[in-house]
Amino acid sequence: MTNKLILLRHGQSEWNEKNLFTGWVDVRLTDQGRGEAARAGELLAESGVLPDVLYTSVLSRAIQTANLALEAADRMWIPVVRSWRLNERHYGALQGLDKAETLQKYGETQFMEWRRSYDTPPPVLEDSNEWSQANDARYEGIDGERPQTECLEDVVTRLIPYWENVILPDLRAGKTVLVTAHGNSLRALVKHLEGISDEDIAGLNIPTGMPLVYEIGEDGTPSGAGTYLDPEAAAAGAAAVAAQGK
Amino acid sequence: MTNKLILLRHGQSEWNEKNLFTGWVDVRLTDQGRGEAARAGELLAESGVLPDVLYTSVLSRAIQTANLALEAADRMWIPVVRSWRLNERHYGALQGLDKAETLQKYGETQFMEWRRSYDTPPPVLEDSNEWSQANDARYEGIDGERPQTECLEDVVTRLIPYWENVILPDLRAGKTVLVTAHGNSLRALVKHLEGISDEDIAGLNIPTGMPLVYEIGEDGTPSGAGTYLDPEAAAAGAAAVAAQGK
Repeated sequence: MTNKLILLRHGQSEWNEKNLFTGWVDVRLTDQGRGEAARAGELLAESGVLPDVLYTSVLSRAIQTANLALEAADRMWIPVVRSWRLNERHYGALQGLDKAETLQKYGETQFMEWRRSYDTPPPVLEDSNEWSQANDARYEGIDGERPQTECLEDVVTRLIPYWENVILPDLRAGKTVLVTAHGNSLRALVKHLEGISDEDIAGLNIPTGMPLVYEIGEDGTPSGAGTYLDPEAAAAGAAAVAAQGK
Repeated sequence: MTNKLILLRHGQSEWNEKNLFTGWVDVRLTDQGRGEAARAGELLAESGVLPDVLYTSVLSRAIQTANLALEAADRMWIPVVRSWRLNERHYGALQGLDKAETLQKYGETQFMEWRRSYDTPPPVLEDSNEWSQANDARYEGIDGERPQTECLEDVVTRLIPYWENVILPDLRAGKTVLVTAHGNSLRALVKHLEGISDEDIAGLNIPTGMPLVYEIGEDGTPSGAGTYLDPEAAAAGAAAVAAQGK
């Protein structure tokens, strides 16, 4: 027996639109992003893949995406669990910087290492920086664990135990689980699910607002690669992500 | 020491606007209702009464209200707990009927007894009725407890243990608690909090979209009557509720 896991990256945010590194900065969805989220919910309803429980990060853009998708799918009433462990990768000192300017200033090699290196984080974001989350009430409870920068490996380290201990038990209990999160937290989860190598994960791009469905078995592994509910749109979306900053 | 409890009745729904008995029928907010919800969130932000945790019913209009209010107050990230125990009173066989037509057909005495009698429920809504929730997935787990009609006393019976055992512990733990719910589930809670008699509760009307704040002590009782964050608008709203069906 398998149960369905739906991964959904938030729709376009204000800073996606402005082409800025976002990370843990709590920006909202654009109108386009809101439309993407609603469309994702329609796809869930049309395909009959209806979530029984929702997991989201504590960032507004993922929560807005979930709210709008569940409104469109008429599943607003399902239980919700939020965790910082599903947050986007903390982008360190790059948070708030323009992607194109950063590419120009540091060159393609350094730029791509920051964006896609598995184990090299960007420089630390000081707590005094205007884009720091040092005084954000939502992280009061996690104190010592609040990062000041992260590489993808750091995201795997903080996310996979949560997947194993909190999300997976819901799947094992027969529930269809929706996870609304971010480009890099979902890359970390897909890397784990599909057993993608530290090198190959650099080439994986997850499009915004496209439900990606896995069939998860009792042992926690998927029966195969994930399936986008709208494969054509997803391929175009992934290509757009890969081209960012160019 | 006291902690803040915020009660918020959902904004205008599609069936408030059409003047139909709603109960457990899962209608959405109107544009006016969405505006009320956002305004409620602005009031929370302006007054600095910021919730740490949200409790809602499982009805979409209360969930939409919470989502929009928390979006406006920039508190989308707080934990959420949903329960059918916060649902509107089940209106039995009146669900789906026009309030003005019902008043005309049955007369003011019967009409007001159905609306405001403490212990006389309307006739049962058969599971075969188009407005029944017999096949609604959100109530699969509560089986034997799903009502087919309720008087206000029934709401008190299913709600107050939840208040005592689930919501109150969060207040005792020092949290500011937001409850987004419905005219009659909030009347049941206010009756309990303020010790209002079975007779006098008939005269209490709670306006839509107006945050009502209590200071709750360690013993679970409020330090005084609740305070609306916008008292003038709340008085006008309560009068409008009292005049419904007229």
